[in-house]
Amino acid sequence: MAMNSDRAIQARGNTLGEIAAAMQAAGSVLLFPHSSMDGDTLGSSVALCLALRKAGKEAFVVIDEEIPDMINFVDYGCCTRSLEMIAEPELCVCVDCGELHRLNDRGALFKSGKSRMCIDHHVSTMPAFEWNYIDPAASATAEIVYDIVTLLGTGFDRQISEAIYAGIVTDTGKFQYSNTTQKTHIITASLYEYGLVPSELSIKIYQSVSREKMMLEASIISTMELVAGGKVAVASMTQKMLKDSGAKPDDTDGVVERLRNVRGVEVAVLVRERRDGRIKVSLRSKQSVDVAAFSAARGGGGHVRAAGYTADSSLEEVKAGLIADLEALIAAGY
Amino acid sequence: MAMNSDRAIQARGNTLGEIAAAMQAAGSVLLFPHSSMDGDTLGSSVALCLALRKAGKEAFVVIDEEIPDMINFVDYGCCTRSLEMIAEPELCVCVDCGELHRLNDRGALFKSGKSRMCIDHHVSTMPAFEWNYIDPAASATAEIVYDIVTLLGTGFDRQISEAIYAGIVTDTGKFQYSNTTQKTHIITASLYEYGLVPSELSIKIYQSVSREKMMLEASIISTMELVAGGKVAVASMTQKMLKDSGAKPDDTDGVVERLRNVRGVEVAVLVRERRDGRIKVSLRSKQSVDVAAFSAARGGGGHVRAAGYTADSSLEEVKAGLIADLEALIAAGY
Repeated sequence: MAMNSDRAIQARGNTLGEIAAAMQAAGSVLLFPHSSMDGDTLGSSVALCLALRKAGKEAFVVIDEEIPDMINFVDYGCCTRSLEMIAEPELCVCVDCGELHRLNDRGALFKSGKSRMCIDHHVSTMPAFEWNYIDPAASATAEIVYDIVTLLGTGFDRQISEAIYAGIVTDTGKFQYSNTTQKTHIITASLYEYGLVPSELSIKIYQSVSREKMMLEASIISTMELVAGGKVAVASMTQKMLKDSGAKPDDTDGVVERLRNVRGVEVAVLVRERRDGRIKVSLRSKQSVDVAAFSAARGGGGHVRAAGYTADSSLEEVKAGLIADLEALIAAGY
Repeated sequence: MAMNSDRAIQARGNTLGEIAAAMQAAGSVLLFPHSSMDGDTLGSSVALCLALRKAGKEAFVVIDEEIPDMINFVDYGCCTRSLEMIAEPELCVCVDCGELHRLNDRGALFKSGKSRMCIDHHVSTMPAFEWNYIDPAASATAEIVYDIVTLLGTGFDRQISEAIYAGIVTDTGKFQYSNTTQKTHIITASLYEYGLVPSELSIKIYQSVSREKMMLEASIISTMELVAGGKVAVASMTQKMLKDSGAKPDDTDGVVERLRNVRGVEVAVLVRERRDGRIKVSLRSKQSVDVAAFSAARGGGGHVRAAGYTADSSLEEVKAGLIADLEALIAAGY
């Protein structure tokens, strides 16, 4: 099977060989997942940490927050909240991001490394350190990590393959997003060689939703309205709904994507009342509407298919305004 | 990468080579998906039909019901509801099932074939026709069809690859169920060679939920109770809820699986009031409880992780009874 032949052209920064050689040359390595950890930043960091330890390095994944429930099995003794595990790290690696502000209070430790590296797949990330490898064609940073581990020559094992899989399955939305490629499936197939049992991980990742989140989702979805001839779905969450459900604010994750699943809907919107009274608007589009531009015009930002902004009037006013704006947008043929 | 080496041993009936040769020898072939069509029975039938036409055969997929919305793009001019497309079919193939009662009124036409064949992956299916190939190690019948199309030598194209993918992605629950294997991913990777764009199919299959179904799901989930120390989730649907939502009875598909996604839940139960007043109970288990045995003891049946039965008292009585029974089962350590 032919691999994605233009991948090397699209990747920015060093070659993968240079990246692996730089890791081989370091005696101690700290890995830094971005804040608001997801499966890819954590899985990629942990997989690299495990491989580097197998290669005889001193290595840790430095975090500064609780690991989210759905991926808290992806630790394998790698994660630490201490900033003092390695006094003078030879190499510090920013994983799945390239901006120091996403490391919060870990930024100074990152900078203290003898050299610094970025491994990422986000198209917006710029090479900013001594070593950089940014491949927007990779579905997940974990795909890049798979190639690096291969080059390190330490071999894969069950834990490394699980950490890589956790990154891939979450960043591709179970292989459904358009970032999924032939290589994604080839890598996943090869991970089976090392004892990976994806269905067991699936239970940990996707079948561990809290009761409170499930109830909050149901109450939000029950507020759904279809407007603009069914092309726009709008739902909302008040602070009272959040309180009544007992859920956490970030338990709304994934709800706006579910609204988008409605047939005929091109734009899904979730309007949330924040604790400070401000209104958070999250937008998702299915195939055509540029919600990043829509959000940017309102002081927000994001990706073409996933964006948002924050507003300062009442929930009802914000909702009415954006419905009018989206109806006009749809009527104009976007 | 090593393939699943014991697959040939586990498959029952003829060899794949004999199956392909029998198809090559037939001038006309009718394919029969089972009733209550799903992505695998339809995708497998259509992929075979397209390949057989490429091989110069007269071929049709004979159906007797509407194609469900989420897979109605998997037709490609193959499906017919006429029982008279081919007067004397040389070969009739039962796809993804092996029991004639699942063909409803198409049974007589199936039997009229000069010879008959079964292609299936269900462990319970027995070789019953002149030609049989039953491989329970295949995640989907579409995986077997991939191998048959390879042996037919007609080559794949975009439509064949889409039909096979539709079978695989739906029967594996987006590659999450335990039936998913290394081979599943290897096949999927190879389908990219023929123009498959899975994310486009994903929108058709998974992002076309009716508004009515979405609202019914939310109202059912809002009835969820956790009992047996959180190990059992029970939700219910009355006829009034169904009517108020405007949804169809089969729009409850998938809801009981969502209940199972709650953390700590081992058994999820959906209790539905049917139009005739009878009560339909659907059970799903996560890792240990044998819900097939539980259901069989109540006159129903199914698989170890997915089963159900029908009862004849009121919804509240049925619910109270099964909660008591499941609490006892959980207390007894299953």
